[in-house]
Amino acid sequence: MDNLLDLIAGVDPVTEKFAVETQRRLDNLTKPKGSLGVLEELAKRYVAIRNNISPKIKKKVVYIFAGDHGVTDEGISAYPKSVTSQMVKNFIAGGAGINVLARHAGVGVKVVDMGVDFDFEDDVNIIDKKIQKGTGNMTKGPAMRREEAIKAIQTGIELAGEYVNEGGDILGVGEMGIGNTTASSAIAAAITGFSVEDVTGMGTGITEDGWKRKVGVIKKALALNRPDPREPLDVLAKVGGLEIGGIVGIIIGGALGRIPVVIDGFISTAGALIAMELQPNIEGYLIASHSSVERGHKVILNRMGLKPLFDLSLRLGEGTGAVIGISLIEMGMKIYQEMATFEDAEVDRKL
Amino acid sequence: MDNLLDLIAGVDPVTEKFAVETQRRLDNLTKPKGSLGVLEELAKRYVAIRNNISPKIKKKVVYIFAGDHGVTDEGISAYPKSVTSQMVKNFIAGGAGINVLARHAGVGVKVVDMGVDFDFEDDVNIIDKKIQKGTGNMTKGPAMRREEAIKAIQTGIELAGEYVNEGGDILGVGEMGIGNTTASSAIAAAITGFSVEDVTGMGTGITEDGWKRKVGVIKKALALNRPDPREPLDVLAKVGGLEIGGIVGIIIGGALGRIPVVIDGFISTAGALIAMELQPNIEGYLIASHSSVERGHKVILNRMGLKPLFDLSLRLGEGTGAVIGISLIEMGMKIYQEMATFEDAEVDRKL
Repeated sequence: MDNLLDLIAGVDPVTEKFAVETQRRLDNLTKPKGSLGVLEELAKRYVAIRNNISPKIKKKVVYIFAGDHGVTDEGISAYPKSVTSQMVKNFIAGGAGINVLARHAGVGVKVVDMGVDFDFEDDVNIIDKKIQKGTGNMTKGPAMRREEAIKAIQTGIELAGEYVNEGGDILGVGEMGIGNTTASSAIAAAITGFSVEDVTGMGTGITEDGWKRKVGVIKKALALNRPDPREPLDVLAKVGGLEIGGIVGIIIGGALGRIPVVIDGFISTAGALIAMELQPNIEGYLIASHSSVERGHKVILNRMGLKPLFDLSLRLGEGTGAVIGISLIEMGMKIYQEMATFEDAEVDRKL
Repeated sequence: MDNLLDLIAGVDPVTEKFAVETQRRLDNLTKPKGSLGVLEELAKRYVAIRNNISPKIKKKVVYIFAGDHGVTDEGISAYPKSVTSQMVKNFIAGGAGINVLARHAGVGVKVVDMGVDFDFEDDVNIIDKKIQKGTGNMTKGPAMRREEAIKAIQTGIELAGEYVNEGGDILGVGEMGIGNTTASSAIAAAITGFSVEDVTGMGTGITEDGWKRKVGVIKKALALNRPDPREPLDVLAKVGGLEIGGIVGIIIGGALGRIPVVIDGFISTAGALIAMELQPNIEGYLIASHSSVERGHKVILNRMGLKPLFDLSLRLGEGTGAVIGISLIEMGMKIYQEMATFEDAEVDRKL
């Protein structure tokens, strides 16, 4: 625990050492100043995060953290719990939405089993980091013990460290876990102080009655466990999830390794919220890809001061928005590095 | 002229023949129904436009129409007129913003000289359709004669026809022409009835004084030429541009060939407005990629009933937003065609 907090303390703020030089280069390119808008902003962010005036984006991976949730016993999801392990197999086989979009964007997919309630075959291409087979039912007690939450975070940090050592340039975050919008809404309510109703959405597609039930379950879990909003680890342990802990960790690890972490929808943003509560310097390393349909997403993004790049009414998770975000960041960096300057192209400047 | 109107009358409305079947397939994929939002909508649009339940997207090209504007004599642009031909050479050399983004998206770039005031070398890779060396100064008389406007449209229609014959699957529209936001604002004001102030922006980056001057120039041109808002060809000829005529034509030609036309920012949307005024069935074939910073863009999009896919604060033109739009459409079609179904992947359905 002390080790973990020491590690987290080591996240440096993103510096603006190269800001003037980056802006000068962008303004020398054959286009009106600032006319590529957000793409130019993304190039500046990328240079600043990498702390390198001419960084490449070669290795791109989205990590999908998977885990089950004991709270599914309360009937809060539109899908049965079995879908978590079945979708993990779908990711491995390459047939899920994230696989299709990641292939399009040239992004690799890695699947991390943080706590799926299923025994996968040994030869299956999963990163096996199973801590336990799903969390406890948070309406009956804490989802995890504190040690498990810490272990989940440490696992994520280690994975990011290995990725950075292998030459990883940018990292996307995705997840799979039936019941994890319920956990994320509980985290959001606990930390932001917004009402459960304000941060609870329709998940994978529940009915209005299902939504009322879900809100009731979250309120019960919060009343029973009383997570301390000033203690992000307490919140994660009591009402979070194993895969959310992995997400917290990989975000911290990405920041430690000075690579940008592109978050996806509601669940990965809930993980990012915990990471930022632990270490505010994390903010500079986070890029919010999209604005999800899920109600609580905007609440958390506002709390964190993050503005998403686009809104395509996505609500699938898995990292699907994150890989589109990675593609936009890559476009920004290609603009920065591949466009001709006014001198190169012999184009006249502004009058 | 009669030929042209007969041709335009031949644009069929997009039919929904495959709508039920497409929706059924999307709903069978391993994701909650509708959870990929706009990407699913784009897949449905693509199938409907191609009138084919299983169409491919292989050949993708953005056409950049270039032309000069006599109204630049009035000092309405931040850049000298020479930049039109210089940027055309930059497109050919592959150093412009559109080249970088098109390469990223796997989209080809074709440059069409509709009326650049420059003699390019014969061996340069430009599609030479020069009608004349730029338009007339619309504060002194009409920008074009009616015959030139018609010829510009016919040129665009022919180019689209050739592209469809070569197996083109989707078409992006871009442009280059110093002074063409001035022409586009004049078109927007003439057709929509909004005030010149409401549809005139800062172009490539003029000052507040420059903006007032630009508004005055447009008002003068409209007062002198009195384009008839019920006659889109009259508007195009009197206050439009040669490259805008080419855009009108390629949009009509794309619709005739049943391929989607992805429009870019303010200028290509002004061309699309004229095309839709000529033939309302065009709407079904148009996909608006982004919402531009340029003030008049939203006014025209609203008038046309088009909702752009994203807003990245772009204002470069060239087709830069259009190629990002093409990439999103491709993602939607890959989702539709490459994702596993619940049966394939043995994933349990909704409870």
